[in-house]
Amino acid sequence: MSDTDDGGGQELGITESKAHKPGEWYAEVVQKAELADYAPMGGFIVTRPRGYAIWERIKDHLDGWFKSSGVQNSYFPMFIPESYLEREKDIVEGFDPEVAWVSEAGHEELEERLAVRPTSESIITPFIARWVRSHRDLPMRLNQWCSVVRWEATDTKPFFRTKEFLWQEGHTAHADEDGAWTETMARLGQYERLYEEVMAIPGLTGRKPEHDKFPGAHTTTTIEALMPDGKSVQAGTSHYLGTSFAEAFDITYADVDEAERTAHTTSWGLSWRAMGALIMTHSDDQGLVLPPALAPEQVVIVPIWQEDTEDEVLEYSADLAADLDDEFRVHLDDRDERNPGFKYNEWELKGVPLRIEIGPNEVADGEVTMVHRPDGESEVADRDAAVDAVGEALDTVYAKLYAAAEATLEENIREAHGRDEILGTLGQHGGYVRTGWCGDEGCETEIKDQIAAEIVMLPLDRDEAPVHDTCGVCGEPAADTAYFAKNY
Amino acid sequence: MSDTDDGGGQELGITESKAHKPGEWYAEVVQKAELADYAPMGGFIVTRPRGYAIWERIKDHLDGWFKSSGVQNSYFPMFIPESYLEREKDIVEGFDPEVAWVSEAGHEELEERLAVRPTSESIITPFIARWVRSHRDLPMRLNQWCSVVRWEATDTKPFFRTKEFLWQEGHTAHADEDGAWTETMARLGQYERLYEEVMAIPGLTGRKPEHDKFPGAHTTTTIEALMPDGKSVQAGTSHYLGTSFAEAFDITYADVDEAERTAHTTSWGLSWRAMGALIMTHSDDQGLVLPPALAPEQVVIVPIWQEDTEDEVLEYSADLAADLDDEFRVHLDDRDERNPGFKYNEWELKGVPLRIEIGPNEVADGEVTMVHRPDGESEVADRDAAVDAVGEALDTVYAKLYAAAEATLEENIREAHGRDEILGTLGQHGGYVRTGWCGDEGCETEIKDQIAAEIVMLPLDRDEAPVHDTCGVCGEPAADTAYFAKNY
Repeated sequence: MSDTDDGGGQELGITESKAHKPGEWYAEVVQKAELADYAPMGGFIVTRPRGYAIWERIKDHLDGWFKSSGVQNSYFPMFIPESYLEREKDIVEGFDPEVAWVSEAGHEELEERLAVRPTSESIITPFIARWVRSHRDLPMRLNQWCSVVRWEATDTKPFFRTKEFLWQEGHTAHADEDGAWTETMARLGQYERLYEEVMAIPGLTGRKPEHDKFPGAHTTTTIEALMPDGKSVQAGTSHYLGTSFAEAFDITYADVDEAERTAHTTSWGLSWRAMGALIMTHSDDQGLVLPPALAPEQVVIVPIWQEDTEDEVLEYSADLAADLDDEFRVHLDDRDERNPGFKYNEWELKGVPLRIEIGPNEVADGEVTMVHRPDGESEVADRDAAVDAVGEALDTVYAKLYAAAEATLEENIREAHGRDEILGTLGQHGGYVRTGWCGDEGCETEIKDQIAAEIVMLPLDRDEAPVHDTCGVCGEPAADTAYFAKNY
Repeated sequence: MSDTDDGGGQELGITESKAHKPGEWYAEVVQKAELADYAPMGGFIVTRPRGYAIWERIKDHLDGWFKSSGVQNSYFPMFIPESYLEREKDIVEGFDPEVAWVSEAGHEELEERLAVRPTSESIITPFIARWVRSHRDLPMRLNQWCSVVRWEATDTKPFFRTKEFLWQEGHTAHADEDGAWTETMARLGQYERLYEEVMAIPGLTGRKPEHDKFPGAHTTTTIEALMPDGKSVQAGTSHYLGTSFAEAFDITYADVDEAERTAHTTSWGLSWRAMGALIMTHSDDQGLVLPPALAPEQVVIVPIWQEDTEDEVLEYSADLAADLDDEFRVHLDDRDERNPGFKYNEWELKGVPLRIEIGPNEVADGEVTMVHRPDGESEVADRDAAVDAVGEALDTVYAKLYAAAEATLEENIREAHGRDEILGTLGQHGGYVRTGWCGDEGCETEIKDQIAAEIVMLPLDRDEAPVHDTCGVCGEPAADTAYFAKNY
C-alpha cells in the first residue's frame, strides 16, 4: 500500500493551497482531518469524533468558567410556540425569515405551529419570569448547550455557515442595569479568555452598531477574530437586553423596599464558529494545526525501527508513553503496516502539536527527539527529563501559534481617512480599516455596496474619542470609531 | 414570613402522599424540588438547574465509561430526510406514527420533508458505511448526547413521558456477530452499573419478546427497574441489530483475506427516564431523596445560633465547610432570614443526603451532628475526624437506599401458574410475575386486555430452561420464562 493512500483509496494529503484557494483548502482540511462531513441536506454537517472532541474541550473550558461564576445549566424545549415567538416584536422580525416550522406531528396537523428554536429568549424568559419573585432570586443565570436552526440560504461552510449549529446560550436576569452590564461584560471577557488562552487567537472586542444589534438588545457586544484570508469572524456575542424582554415577558420582582421592579436581562452565546476560526487561523498546507489545549492527542510517539532494533525501540517508546500519559494526551503509533514518513504526514494532517521520534539513536543516547507541529522545529531532550520537556515544548507550540496570529492581527489593522482610501485598503489588504464614523448606516451602505465590507464593531467604550474627527465616508463630524472589514 | 412559605407565596412542603396518590405526589416532588416545570406545549417540560445537574452527573458517569471502552462522541443533524428514514423498512413502520415533520423553513416549502429525529440509525448508519472501508476501521463506535422527539399522545409525566427527551444513543459497527454481541452486552452492563453503583437501584436485565423488539433489531436487551407503585420502567435498551441496518445502508468492509463482508451493528440508548426512575424510587413524603453520587449538594451545614453564640457557631461552621469542600459538594446555609426548622425542611425537600447541624453544643464539645436524609437517623462525630465521618455517612446513606430498593424488588418478583393466578397476583401486588410462556403474543394479549400488564422481559440466556414446563396462560409447553408487569 502506498504512502499517500489511506487504505480507502483516498489521497491523504491536502492538495489545495491556503494562500491561493482558501475556501477549497478549508473544506479539504475539515474533511481530511476527519473533523466533519457534509450531510445529505444542504446546509447541514455531520461532526465526526475528531471534530466533536475539539468542541467538547471548548465546552469544558467555558462550562467550568461559567459554573464558577454563578451560571447553572438547564434545558428548555427545542420548539417554541409561534405565539411565544411573537411576544417580543424585534425577535420575531429578526428571526421569522430564518425559522424552520413543525406543523405536522404524529400524523396530525398541529393547532399552533412550533418554531425549531433559532435562539431561546422567547421560551426561557417567560420561565425566568415565573421563577423570579423577590430580589433574593436575582441574579438568575441560566445556560444551555444545544443546537439551534437558522434557515439561511447560503453555501455550506462547515462550522462557519450551517443551518443547524451547536452553541451555548446564556440567559440571565438582574435587579438593575448595573448588574446586567457587569454580566454582559463578564461573559464577553470569558469568550476573550477562551480565544486567547485556549485557542491561541487574539480577539478584538467591541460593540455592534445600532442597526446590527441582536433583535431587542440595548447593546450587542462581540468578539471578532481576523482570519488569514483577511475576513473577520464573529463567533461570540454578549447582549445587554435592557428591559425589553423583561417587559415583554413580565419579569418583575419585589425589591428590598417591597416595591415591584422590572428586571434587566442579558443573553450571550458562543457557537461552533469558534471552531471554524480555530481551524482556519492556525492550519496550513500540511493540514490541521491545533493548540495543545484543544488537541485530541497532544503528543504522538513514532518509533522508527529495523528488524534488529524493533524490540528495544518499541520497549523504549512504550515506556515513554506510559510516563507521559499521566500529564498529557499521548498516542503511541506502533502500527507495523505504516512507515514513519506516512505516520508523520498523517499526524501532521490531523494536527497533533508535538511529535516524538524514537529510533535506535535515541535509545542508545537516552534521549527523545521532539518536533513542533507549526514549523517542524525539532529539539532533543534527555529521556529522564521528558515529562518536563514535553510540557515546555507544548507551551512553546502555544506561544508560536499565538505570536503568529497576533502579528497577523497587528499588521492588519489599518487607518484610512476617505471613502477611496477605505475601499482601496480593504480591497488590497483585507483586515480591519479603522476610521471615523458619523453614525449613519448610509455611510456603511456606501462601502458595503462597493466591496461587501461592513462595520464589524465600534469600541466598547462609548465615550472614547473617535480616531478621526470626521466620518471617513461622508466627512461629517465623527461620533465613533468604526472598524470596517469583510466578514463571514 | 412563615416557615412554610418559600417567599413566593407557594407552600414549600409536599402535600400529597406517595403511598396513596403516587402520580400527584411525583408531580409535586418534581416541581417543588425544582427539577422541572411544564412547558406551554403539552408533552414538553423545562429541565431546571437542579434537575439538569442530576442529568449531567448521570451523563458524566456513563460518558467516562463509554470513552474508556472505545466510544467516541460525535454529532449528527437533528433532521433526517424522509427518504433516509424510509430506507430501513422496520424503522419507518415503527416510528412514522410518532414523527414531527418540518416541511416549511425560511418562508419556503421544502422539497423533501425532514423528520425531527426520533432515533438516529437512519442518519448515522449511512455515514458509518461511508467511513468504514477495511477491517482496520472496525469496530467503529459512535455516540451522541442529544434530544429526540416522539409524538406520543399521552399525559405529560416529567422524565417518564415527554414528547422531547434527552438521551444518549450509541451506534457501532463490528466485523462479525460475535463482536456486535459483546458490544450489546457490554453497554447493557454499563447501564446496570449506572443503576446499581450510581443510582442505588437494582436493575433487572433481560431481553424483549420478538414482538416488542426495537424496529429492525435481531435482539433488544433491556434494563428494567421496579417502581414503588408496582410498575416496571425501561430506561435503557441495548440492541443487537444483526445485519439489517448494515444491509439497508450498505456497510461493507474488506476483510483480512480481502473478501468483502457485511458488518454487524448495534445501537443502545439510555434516556432521562432513568432520572424519573431515580426520583420515584427513593423519594418520600418529605420530598426528593438522592444518592450521594448524583446529589447537587451532598452535604448541607445548618448552623443554629442565638445572638450571643452567632459568631462562634458561624465561624466553626465555615471552618467545617472549608474542610469538607475538597472532598464533597458542601453548602453552608447561613441565611439569617430563615430559622433552622425551615432550612431542614427545605433541604429535605431538595434531597440533600446528609445534613450537619452545628449549634453551641457541637462547638463546645468539638463535634458535628450528622443526619441521614432517607430516615432521619443522626450520629455524632468528632470535628477532627469529620472528613472521614462524612465519607462514611454518605456510604451508609447509599447502602440504605440500595438495601431498601433491593428488598422491594425481591419481595415483588412472584411466580404464578395459571391465567387467574397471574391476573390475581398482578392485580393485588403489582411487581413482576414470572411464569412459563409458550412464545405466542396472543397469550400476552390475553393478560394485557384484562389488566394492562405485559411481558416486560425474558431471560437474557435463550437456553435457560423455562421456570415452568407449561405456559402460564394457555397451558401449552413453555419455551421461555416471561416476566409480566404493568409498566411505564
